[in-house]
Parts: sequence; structure tokens; C-alpha cells
Amino acid sequence: MSHEAPETLRPVIRRIRDAFDEDLERVRGFLRTPSISYTGEGIQETAEQVAGFIRELGGEARVVPTEGHPIVSGRLDQGAPKSVLVYGMYDVMPADEPNWSSDPWGAEIRDLPKLGRSIIGRGAVNTKGPLAAFFRAVARYQEAAGRLPVNLLFAIEGEEEMGSRHFVPFVEDHLEELKEADAVLFPFFSEDEEGVPSLTLGTKGILYFELEARGGDWGGPTERGIHGSYNAWVANPAWRLVKALGTLVDADEKILVDGFFEGQEPLPPRELEVLRRQVESGLLDERPFMEFDHVRRFKGGLRGFELWKRLFSQPQLNIDGIVGGYVGEGTKTLLPHRALAKVDVRTVPRMDPTRVVEAIRHHLDRHGFADVEMRVLNKYPWSKVSLDEHAVQAMLGTYQVMGRTPQIWPLNPGSAPYYVFERILGVPYVTGGLGHGSRQHSTDEYCTVAGVLDFEISLVRWFHAYAALAEGRATVEELGWREEGPA
Amino acid sequence: MSHEAPETLRPVIRRIRDAFDEDLERVRGFLRTPSISYTGEGIQETAEQVAGFIRELGGEARVVPTEGHPIVSGRLDQGAPKSVLVYGMYDVMPADEPNWSSDPWGAEIRDLPKLGRSIIGRGAVNTKGPLAAFFRAVARYQEAAGRLPVNLLFAIEGEEEMGSRHFVPFVEDHLEELKEADAVLFPFFSEDEEGVPSLTLGTKGILYFELEARGGDWGGPTERGIHGSYNAWVANPAWRLVKALGTLVDADEKILVDGFFEGQEPLPPRELEVLRRQVESGLLDERPFMEFDHVRRFKGGLRGFELWKRLFSQPQLNIDGIVGGYVGEGTKTLLPHRALAKVDVRTVPRMDPTRVVEAIRHHLDRHGFADVEMRVLNKYPWSKVSLDEHAVQAMLGTYQVMGRTPQIWPLNPGSAPYYVFERILGVPYVTGGLGHGSRQHSTDEYCTVAGVLDFEISLVRWFHAYAALAEGRATVEELGWREEGPA
Repeated sequence: MSHEAPETLRPVIRRIRDAFDEDLERVRGFLRTPSISYTGEGIQETAEQVAGFIRELGGEARVVPTEGHPIVSGRLDQGAPKSVLVYGMYDVMPADEPNWSSDPWGAEIRDLPKLGRSIIGRGAVNTKGPLAAFFRAVARYQEAAGRLPVNLLFAIEGEEEMGSRHFVPFVEDHLEELKEADAVLFPFFSEDEEGVPSLTLGTKGILYFELEARGGDWGGPTERGIHGSYNAWVANPAWRLVKALGTLVDADEKILVDGFFEGQEPLPPRELEVLRRQVESGLLDERPFMEFDHVRRFKGGLRGFELWKRLFSQPQLNIDGIVGGYVGEGTKTLLPHRALAKVDVRTVPRMDPTRVVEAIRHHLDRHGFADVEMRVLNKYPWSKVSLDEHAVQAMLGTYQVMGRTPQIWPLNPGSAPYYVFERILGVPYVTGGLGHGSRQHSTDEYCTVAGVLDFEISLVRWFHAYAALAEGRATVEELGWREEGPA
Repeated sequence: MSHEAPETLRPVIRRIRDAFDEDLERVRGFLRTPSISYTGEGIQETAEQVAGFIRELGGEARVVPTEGHPIVSGRLDQGAPKSVLVYGMYDVMPADEPNWSSDPWGAEIRDLPKLGRSIIGRGAVNTKGPLAAFFRAVARYQEAAGRLPVNLLFAIEGEEEMGSRHFVPFVEDHLEELKEADAVLFPFFSEDEEGVPSLTLGTKGILYFELEARGGDWGGPTERGIHGSYNAWVANPAWRLVKALGTLVDADEKILVDGFFEGQEPLPPRELEVLRRQVESGLLDERPFMEFDHVRRFKGGLRGFELWKRLFSQPQLNIDGIVGGYVGEGTKTLLPHRALAKVDVRTVPRMDPTRVVEAIRHHLDRHGFADVEMRVLNKYPWSKVSLDEHAVQAMLGTYQVMGRTPQIWPLNPGSAPYYVFERILGVPYVTGGLGHGSRQHSTDEYCTVAGVLDFEISLVRWFHAYAALAEGRATVEELGWREEGPA
């Protein structure tokens, strides 16, 4: 398969290249309006800008109020057989870190070592940069080819950085309309510093809870910490928490809770095969992670394929934090009246998070810790997209024909509420596009200028490929993706 | 035995009563100079005042510099056969709590509900109030009887509120001189709100250490916390700490460390008998403690004699504090690189604290936690004084002849470095005197005015009784103390 673009795409790509200076200025301009999730600064104005982008394409758009920040809803009918729901976010983190080397709202272009010309600014990568560039790619497609090969629906939220708390209800409230979509796309710069894009086939679910031991009928002081020396006759809630937690895992963190793993499925054989190939070829390599995160040894001493398999297929039960009593300097003694642990569980297909809560509660009760309170603060399920989905195949094929060998992650070990697409809407989703940026949530967030151009081209290729696959006008092989990697 | 004072004491007590208004003003005056341990404010000036008090009695005094606050050293030779070392402290806590109802350095007199006229001020009870009143009692003794029946040595420190860090070295440096003492007295208001004085026959020792689990060769992130989702393949130092701690005790806090209890002796039969009598008579009653400290149940469900026996005879292994990872509000996830517990052990006779450290270290190593670091921050042994000591007998007899039935605590469950007297100097010590105050380390610290008078009288009675017992001029029975309680 040649890397040359199909005939219909060539004028589109040419148009993108020709007009790129203008597109780059549009992207930079969008970054110059702050839209800070936590403070609300610029949120409404930015939502209106996004609605304007949709209208500029000839679409309809509404800025839909929620109890939090508004969600930009819209549609662009292109008379196409298939429709794609574009998910995105227009909010960003604050930029109050000291040490920015240029104005975080200035979107200045600077030469970065090894990376070349890059836009510096809050949101450059996460994710106002790709959002603005997405609109430019669609506009150029229309200019050069008359119309996009798919219809678009839009749901662009403004609270992603605060946990997307009104997004799931929005989807549930607009179910009939959004179900028109055949796929969901979250446009994002997916390349790392080395130019390797990655694609995830789902995300782990999360269950976040607090366990608290307090003095009560079982013992311990019930109202406030008391003199440390009274532990001779009064039990200690910190010990109680330690002992309760200690029943949940063994010394190697093997999870001991009956029913915890109920429903867990192994990775599909085909994904295992892809994974093995990626590890063997060095495409997936744990060494950069070990270096970056200062880790000398993985659980069970695993390395290579077995290690990556563990990351992508196993749930976890993690202590995010633990606190109780006196934790300052020196030798103050105290018998505290409470101790608290913050714990997260990451679930994998097809565990049921509600069942996990029940299993842990039952386990604590059965081990004599009925008094230890369990407060669930957050809970949503995993999501899983098949490697066979047209949206996924089109993205992988696009990466390959553009000369990249993507990492395929069977699951994102982190969590995002994408179950709303895959499990509530019933529509497969894909995150992607070429392009590179980094330092999200930190000083000097950036994206490369070359990446913005690659991103636009990868998007138009994806639209083209996705429509062809979904309409049955082409096969994966014809689009150029080979599961064994590039020829 | 009549409660009437022996003939030689009557003029002394009369003198104390007659001159009490003046003594009260002297006590109040002493409280008006701040002498704050943590800031050093007024420390030197107050040390000089204390030296002045000694000289006023006709004694010699020196303000001895240390690397911290000075220690007032002195002696008062009265040509007596026996000598008493007076231990005391002239430093106080800060008084920066908001809500004081009068100036903490004003020593105002106010009527307190149920308690009557009381001095309000920092140090009123802890312990500048009793220290100043002690000097007045000695002065009145001299005025009325010509001389005190014992010689005095003085060691009054200014760092008690910061852990007495230079006091033990001071004693070790002045061993020969201080060994002249036949007993040590720490003058203190020993009555509770109900007028029941208590006397302890020793103190538990303390061993304070931190246990820290950090990422290392065993696993875990080694430099900083990493994304919580990586617990799927990287072990968590917070789990490691929880599992290491969990090996030390069982779910009922029974200590599981081999060698921990080595050397432990039960309470002497005579003290057990005294304890049983006190519990049966209701003199020792856990209910006020349960109410004040909001405790509903003691360890093992114990009550009464078995409970008190436990408090006075058992060591403890207490978690003072535990901390690691993210402990704020909400659902932030983190895989922390370290977790820390602060732990105190209280030892009883004749445990060896160094052996306890070794036993815990060995236990952790043997259970596979050699990587968990143990940092000893403080360690000193228990001390134990016999019920038969003249200093103790004189104090108990004094309380009884003044109409009080003292609680006798075989051990102070808290810790104080009094081993320096009993085990380094080899001299028995006693803490006491009547009088009442409370709210130490808190707003509106107070002592009652009536208590100051009782305190002075109890001290002169104690001096008289102690000298008579120690010189073999009287027996306990003659002084009026009956172990079975008052007739």
C-alpha cells in the first residue's frame, strides 16, 4: 500500500498545507482566551467561541447550560450515511505556576530542543490546541472537497478538569439525539516525544472510596484524640484501620477480597497477540517508565510481556492516602479518635463496580470490621472498544499510512468516563490524531507546530477512511493497515 | 491518730496561715513574668528569680548555662542529717490560645464555679504556681522553727515543656554532688477537682520511633508519588507500611513481637492488694475517665480491677500518627513513594528499651520488612519507687492526716524521665503536695487559692514527717498512715 493519499483526499491535504499559516494563527488565537475550569474565568466566552466554530462550518450549535459550566452541543449535517459524535473539552487548568517562560495565555511560538517550533500555552495540548485544529481540518475538508464524508454531532464540555460531573447526565438527557452517532471521536495529539502515537481500546473503571475507623462501641476514643499513654487500656482507631486494611491484600498486594474479581475477563486472544508482538518488537518497553517514574522493580518482579499483560488486564486496590493522629515533627504522643484511608480500585472488563463495593463491605464485616465506615466518593465502570471497530481500524490505518507504528493499549490503566459512549450510548469511541504536546497541568505546556499540521492531515485521513470502512466501500487491507505492523 | 499537727509544726502552720496573703501575692508575682520554653521569652530573668528565691532562704544558687535554657542549681544547708533534692521547672507553655478570659500573665484572681477563688494564669498549676509556693513554705518553716528539718539541693530546669533535653546530662555531670540527696521531691498540686490527691510509684518508660516505608529495590516509586493507576504494576509503600505494622499486633492490639515483653515483671503483690482495695472502695473508678475522654469500651472489654491492673502493669505499642499520599478532600489518586507511622512504646519494669528496639527491628526483618526504616527519636527507661520509701510514706501519711484519701498509682502510664533520679542517682523520688489546678497547656489555666494554702501546709508536714521517718525518729504508724485507708 502506498502512503500516497487517495485521490479525493489529495486536494484536501494540499489545501491544509497551503492554508496552514492561517490555521496555526486560529489555533493560537483560541489559546489566548483563558477558560479556567476551577475559577470559571473565560468559560462562557470560550463556549460561545466553540459554538461559533461549529456555525462557521455550516452547523447548528447551542451553548447548553448545566448546573456547572455549559456544554456546547451541535450538529453538522453533510448528507452522509454515517455520523460521528465529536467529544471534546474547552476548559483548562489554571496557569498559576510560577516559572512559565512566556505568557501562558500568549500562545507564543518558540524553538524547543529536539522538538522544533512549538506553541507554548495553557491548553496547547490539553486540549484546546487539538480542538481548534480539529475545526480547521474540517473546514479545509469542506473547502477542498465540498463536504465532509460524515455528518458530525458535537458535545464539547467545560468541566473535564473538574471531573466531567455534568457530562454523563447531559448524554443521558440527549440519548435519542446522540444515538444517531455511529462512532465517537475525541480529537487529541497522540504522539509521544519520539513520534510514536498510542491508541487505547478502552479504559479501566474507577471506584474511589474512603475507609474510616473511629472510636465507638468497639473501643477507642470517640470524640477527640486523647493522651497517648492511654493506649495501655484504650484501643487505637489507627491500629483498627491498619488491621482492617491489612485484611484486604497480602504482603505482595495480592487482593484477598472474595468476589472482588467476579466477572473479570482475560484480554481477548487477539489483543494478547498484538501485545506480545509489541513487547517483542520493543514498541512497548517498560524501561523509559522505570526511569521517568523512578521505579526499580515491578510487582512480582515481572518484566516484559507478563508485566504489560498485568498492567492492561488486572484491577488494582491502591491506597491513595492514609492519615490519622499526629503527623508533624518530633515526639508528640497521641491516641487518635479516627484514622482515614483513601483507596481507589481500577476495574477491568467485566467487573461490576457495585459488586466490588459489596464485596469489600462484606469482607470487612466478615473480618470483624463492621464499624469501619466505607464511603464511596466516585464510581464508574470500565469501557472497552473492540480492535475491530471501524473507528479504531481507521485510526490505526491512518497512523500507519502516515509512517507511524502505533502502540495499542488494550486498556488505559487510568480512568475516564468513556463508558458513557460505549455503554450508555452504545457507540464505539476512539481518541486520536497525530501531533505531539506535553507538560499538561504544568509550566510551559506546549504542542509542536509540525504536530498541528500532521494532526489536521491525520484527521482528514481518518474521516475518509472511517466513512469508507463504515459504509463498506473499502476494507482495512485496502486502507493500508496490517495488524502485524507496517510492511 | 489525731489530725492535729505535731507540736513543732504548729507554729509553722500558724505562720503559714498568718502570712498567706503575702505568700499568695508572691506566687501571683512569679506568674507575671512569662518564661516560655519555645520562644525563650523571660527564661533568663525567671531563672534568676528562682536563684533569688534560693538565696532568700539563705542558700547558694547558680544559674547554670546549658546548650538550651539554664538550670538553676543550688543548696541550702540546714545542718540536718538528711537532704532532699528539689526538682522543678520554671518554664511554661506559650499562652497564645485566643479565648483567655483574663490576661494569661496577669495572675488575676477569679471565683470559679465549684472551685472558689482561683488564680488564672499560664503556669498557675504547671508548675510555677507550686514552685513559688514551695519556696514560701520553706521560708515560713524557717521563720517559725528556725530551720528546716532537712537540707535542700535544687535542680530547677527551664526546658521541661520541650522534653527536658539538657536535664539528664546535667544530673550526670553533677552526680557526686546530687548523690548527697536521700530523696527527690517534685512539688506539685496533686489533688483533682474532687479533692482526691494521687501519688505515682514510678513512671512507664518511653520509646518513640518512626517507621517509614519508601519505594526501593523491593518495589514502589523511589523519588516522588506517581499516577495512582500505576499501582496495577508498581507496589505501594503505603500498603507496605500497613502490612509491616499489621504484623506487630493482632486485631485486638495484642503485641506479637517476640522478645518485646522480655523482663516484664508483674506488679508487686502488695501494690496489687492496694490496687484491689482502691478499686473495690471506688477510689479508683474508670467511669469519670470514660466520660471525660469519651471512651465506651476498654481493651478486651475489661472493667474494674483487671482494667486498672492492665493500665498499671502492661506496656503498650501505640500508633501516634500515620500519614502517606494524598489526604485532602475529594478523589485525587496517587501512588505515594513513602508512608510514615509514628509509634510509641511504653515500657514497664523491668523491660529493657534497647532490647525492645532490637526485638521490633528483628521482627520486621524476619517478616520480610527489612526495607522499612525504624528511626528511634526518643528512648528512656521506666522508673519505679517502692511504696516503702520514706519519701512516699511521708507523702501518703501527710495526705491522710490532712483528711484526704490518696489514689496510689503503681505506675504513671505516661512517661517522664524520672529514671534519672531513681536509676542514675539511685535516689527515690516523690511528686506531691496538696492543692488543685488544671487546664495546663490550655486557656484559663488555674489553681485554687485554698489549694495553695493546703499545698504549703502539706509540704511542711511532709518535710517534718520525712525527716522523722528517715532519721528513724518515728514510724509510719505514728505519723498516721494506715495502708488500709483512714480509720
